[in-house]
Amino acid sequence: MDINSYITGFVDGEGCFSVSFNFRSKLTTGIEVRPSFSVAQKKYSLNILQRIQDHFQCGSIRYSKSDGVYKYEVRSISDLVKKIIPHFEKFTLLTAKQNDFLLFSKACRMIHSNQHMNKEKLKDLIELAYAMNQSGSRRNSKQDLLKHLMR
Amino acid sequence: MDINSYITGFVDGEGCFSVSFNFRSKLTTGIEVRPSFSVAQKKYSLNILQRIQDHFQCGSIRYSKSDGVYKYEVRSISDLVKKIIPHFEKFTLLTAKQNDFLLFSKACRMIHSNQHMNKEKLKDLIELAYAMNQSGSRRNSKQDLLKHLMR
Repeated sequence: MDINSYITGFVDGEGCFSVSFNFRSKLTTGIEVRPSFSVAQKKYSLNILQRIQDHFQCGSIRYSKSDGVYKYEVRSISDLVKKIIPHFEKFTLLTAKQNDFLLFSKACRMIHSNQHMNKEKLKDLIELAYAMNQSGSRRNSKQDLLKHLMR
Repeated sequence: MDINSYITGFVDGEGCFSVSFNFRSKLTTGIEVRPSFSVAQKKYSLNILQRIQDHFQCGSIRYSKSDGVYKYEVRSISDLVKKIIPHFEKFTLLTAKQNDFLLFSKACRMIHSNQHMNKEKLKDLIELAYAMNQSGSRRNSKQDLLKHLMR
């Protein structure tokens, strides 16, 4: 078995690429940007999350009380750009999640080069992020975020 | 990418091995046995189900109105024994689903050799099947099935 291809298959079903935003008055833009790659599983499949963590050599596993699942998550922009994104560039996702990944990858590269600290670029980033995971739930609406940047 | 390993990874997250039972008065045992390997996806990931179907060269895809998803399913005992089971014996599942697969594989071989037509063997098969997918829902309880065989 090729573990790289296995992981791409598993993530194509169970993984999530997302960029979320929080209001943070201390930041110049007023908005914090949080990219995340995650895979959630119930307790009896916790071992696969550990295996994925070992494979990528980054990220952490925690229990999400609200969802009752264990979640492997990578939030470090450096790990995302250097370890996670290159994997999925080499071992391509085959479902519609590939579209999310391409947007995610673009967003991460913008964040990695600090473009999220510029209000105009941050607007682009918000548009990009809200084109992803259209079925997911969001704490803040795109309109609220963009309004916040207009102040 | 190795498509065999990818499929094992995808199925490890999204697939389901199950054996279900229905009361059928016309059968000698009074109970019909239905083994099934399935993978469900929302419409925007329908393409991966077609890819899996192409790969295995068996099974069908249908829309499940009740769940609002598309389902790739293999029910033919011959296809299960000759095409599906050998794949997962070669490219092993890495989550707890492997336990389900081992029970499923055992059940399918019993069905393939017509042991489900013998009441005593059918009891063993029911016990086996109800040890799988413990979180899933069942139309008939194990007790009702076993009681039916005692008549």
